[in-house]
Amino acid sequence: MKKYTLGMIGLGTMGRNLLLNMADHGFDVTGYDKDPKMLAKLEEDGKEKNLKGHASLEEFVQSLELPRRIVLLVPAGPIVDSVIAELQPLLEAGDMIIDSGNSHFTDTSRRAEDLSKTNIHFFGMGISGGEEGARFGPSMMPGGDKEAYSAMKEILEAVSAKVNGEPCVTYIGPGAAGHFVKMVHNGIEYAMMQLLAEGYDIMKNSLGYNNEQIEETFKSWNAGRMKSFLMEVTADVFKFKDEKTGKLLIDLIKDEAKSKGTGKWTSQVSMDLYLPIPTINEAVSTRDLSKLKKLRVALAKAFEKPEAKIENPEQFIVDLENAMYFAMIVSYAQGLHLLTQASESYKYELKLDEIAKIWRGGCIIRAELLQDIYAAYQAKPELEHLFEDKNIQQKIAGTLSGIRNVCSTAINHGIGIPAFASALTYFDSLRTANLPSNLTQAQRDFFGAHTFERTDEEGIFHANWNAEN
Amino acid sequence: MKKYTLGMIGLGTMGRNLLLNMADHGFDVTGYDKDPKMLAKLEEDGKEKNLKGHASLEEFVQSLELPRRIVLLVPAGPIVDSVIAELQPLLEAGDMIIDSGNSHFTDTSRRAEDLSKTNIHFFGMGISGGEEGARFGPSMMPGGDKEAYSAMKEILEAVSAKVNGEPCVTYIGPGAAGHFVKMVHNGIEYAMMQLLAEGYDIMKNSLGYNNEQIEETFKSWNAGRMKSFLMEVTADVFKFKDEKTGKLLIDLIKDEAKSKGTGKWTSQVSMDLYLPIPTINEAVSTRDLSKLKKLRVALAKAFEKPEAKIENPEQFIVDLENAMYFAMIVSYAQGLHLLTQASESYKYELKLDEIAKIWRGGCIIRAELLQDIYAAYQAKPELEHLFEDKNIQQKIAGTLSGIRNVCSTAINHGIGIPAFASALTYFDSLRTANLPSNLTQAQRDFFGAHTFERTDEEGIFHANWNAEN
Repeated sequence: MKKYTLGMIGLGTMGRNLLLNMADHGFDVTGYDKDPKMLAKLEEDGKEKNLKGHASLEEFVQSLELPRRIVLLVPAGPIVDSVIAELQPLLEAGDMIIDSGNSHFTDTSRRAEDLSKTNIHFFGMGISGGEEGARFGPSMMPGGDKEAYSAMKEILEAVSAKVNGEPCVTYIGPGAAGHFVKMVHNGIEYAMMQLLAEGYDIMKNSLGYNNEQIEETFKSWNAGRMKSFLMEVTADVFKFKDEKTGKLLIDLIKDEAKSKGTGKWTSQVSMDLYLPIPTINEAVSTRDLSKLKKLRVALAKAFEKPEAKIENPEQFIVDLENAMYFAMIVSYAQGLHLLTQASESYKYELKLDEIAKIWRGGCIIRAELLQDIYAAYQAKPELEHLFEDKNIQQKIAGTLSGIRNVCSTAINHGIGIPAFASALTYFDSLRTANLPSNLTQAQRDFFGAHTFERTDEEGIFHANWNAEN
Repeated sequence: MKKYTLGMIGLGTMGRNLLLNMADHGFDVTGYDKDPKMLAKLEEDGKEKNLKGHASLEEFVQSLELPRRIVLLVPAGPIVDSVIAELQPLLEAGDMIIDSGNSHFTDTSRRAEDLSKTNIHFFGMGISGGEEGARFGPSMMPGGDKEAYSAMKEILEAVSAKVNGEPCVTYIGPGAAGHFVKMVHNGIEYAMMQLLAEGYDIMKNSLGYNNEQIEETFKSWNAGRMKSFLMEVTADVFKFKDEKTGKLLIDLIKDEAKSKGTGKWTSQVSMDLYLPIPTINEAVSTRDLSKLKKLRVALAKAFEKPEAKIENPEQFIVDLENAMYFAMIVSYAQGLHLLTQASESYKYELKLDEIAKIWRGGCIIRAELLQDIYAAYQAKPELEHLFEDKNIQQKIAGTLSGIRNVCSTAINHGIGIPAFASALTYFDSLRTANLPSNLTQAQRDFFGAHTFERTDEEGIFHANWNAEN
């Protein structure tokens, strides 16, 4: 009986496309899904490659060569646990389970811990690239059991995206490192998407651009230093016509942004690690805010919008390009800073240069800028923060008058720019040797006796603030 | 043998002071602490009132009248659990445990659930007011078991702060409602403190004020519509002299702000409830950022600070007062909005007018402004958001040119204003009928097939964005 090299559980868009991708590269693979429609879809799409699936989990497991490679691409959460529970009695020593969904990293830690007591290998792997990426080359972030990674390496490198011939996959680190890095990737993605939305808002409502001009602007930006997948997609959105009405579809889409949780997780974890990522936080909050449509419509009637007039539109669009580039750098910087902290706190042994390297292709946040980031961490792997890199410093310096002008203009025009403003206030706070946080400490000691430290002496102090002195 | 009306476990500053407060009001109370020093301190401070404590938990429990009222004021976390576990075998049916520390509301829910299976009453109560408040009248937020509240009502009302003769305590709601409301109180406090720090920074670095001028400004603000405990404390900070050096102490305090977690919890929970509170988030992030002192000092050398010049300082300080008032309103609005959502999600049955009412006195965020907020929710208890109240709308309208000028000026001066900027961008986003979040949805559907909704038709849609059209 024929034995397959790898089996996929979960044949939704991502699982199916990744399986087709593997088949493209000559691997003998098969799939399983509880839903017969998903199975049929796999076999239909994989007809030419004679791709077959199984309707029975037992038969699926039996069809795999030993040690078994089983990839899960099922919705994150309890479903992953129930699939693992169903699988366990069917597996043999040395078999591997690779959870490739967007699992929360704490779930991955728990599962790795639980399965480490068995003789089954487990690792968590983040995949980015959406439908297209999975089909033709994603960026992949595997972490955990190194033995399992070795057994998967050839397949993963073959199906991944390539940049300059190098695969966009590498072993990320122990434990839940892979899922953690993928989560932060998504956090950065949230920030970038919010920045693009704010850029659109400014072009539309401050500059009075129509969709065609907006498309042209994003397209021109994508032809320069901001070349990136998200910029390309964004430009394309503005020319896409709705089939039914013939109008541009962008104008018919509801302005209520949904989310699946990875951005929220990134923000919540960053707070547990006491590591500030305010631009990602603002992106998360603004998606939530967008859903308050009824309230927004009511408040729009209650408050007047200030008049918007740009004195020098030619200069302003140059400033906006600089502002966007600045804020994109900040978004990556915050995410990478969080990775540095997580690596220390969770002992992930992350190599930030390798992470920047595999993000250059295949994934949603792939961008020209990652080449500079890769270079920065390659030159100095122990870099605490991206802003410390000289090349990045030069790039930032050239954008500062632009971001200041864009933020102050938008603020005076009443345009909501949570991500732009937070990127700038983050930068300005971080490049300030003396913050006003001495006052915060004084207040805390005043009303709560929480003590403070001094600049002129070591130790912990408390003052009797209510005394006359 | 003499029996006491109430016993306190945990005789640190808060517990001791609250016990002294109860004794002041004629209640027969006693205390217990593992640490003999704490016990001695209680008996010393309570000498005149013949206040006695116990060194044995058993004797302490035996000394209380039935049903026993036992208040815990011990550090939040596992200590609360171990104290409850120690207590349980010593208690009798109908006895009450009142956890009055800053417990995470999910811990309170769990403990309430566990103890509901016994015949012991449990409720969680938040207390605000710091040392002074506990001693002479705090604001208290009890929630949970209503029977236990009835048995405590007389004591709580007696010792609480009073505003217009009315006690700053009321039954908040079932379950962990009391601790939840106290947590959000602290979240608002974080935002207010960050705003005051930013105001200080602007006065010092944009206006070039010295500490005396800064004190005068905060004092003058405290004499007007911004009258509040935190404003009063802040003004006082700037005149307090260090005993050792004779210098003003504010200039000798390290600019690294610590935190105890309640602000972070507020932000994290708000994200779980999909309810945006970006100004509180920024306050939390900025405390974390302040701790990156070494990095800040290094980056200060790498990036030039823009020159700060205020054209019209007389007008600017008026604008700053408006900006501060605006941002204070926003901070309360975000916190109260979170309470509205939590009340729905967790079935807390919160009465926001009652909460605003008991916050007017005793607690750290007490402020003149709470009178307006109380009136807003009294007039319309079902208010979704504070911005919907006409009186608040009028107050906001008058501040808008001020906050816009302060934010754009600080941004051009390179002064970090995370809380001010986020308060304004939150406001501007929330009073915008059409946000650019349609682009976010288009992008999500483009690369992830996450679907979107339309403005012209009900349903869930997906477009084939990659097709030529």
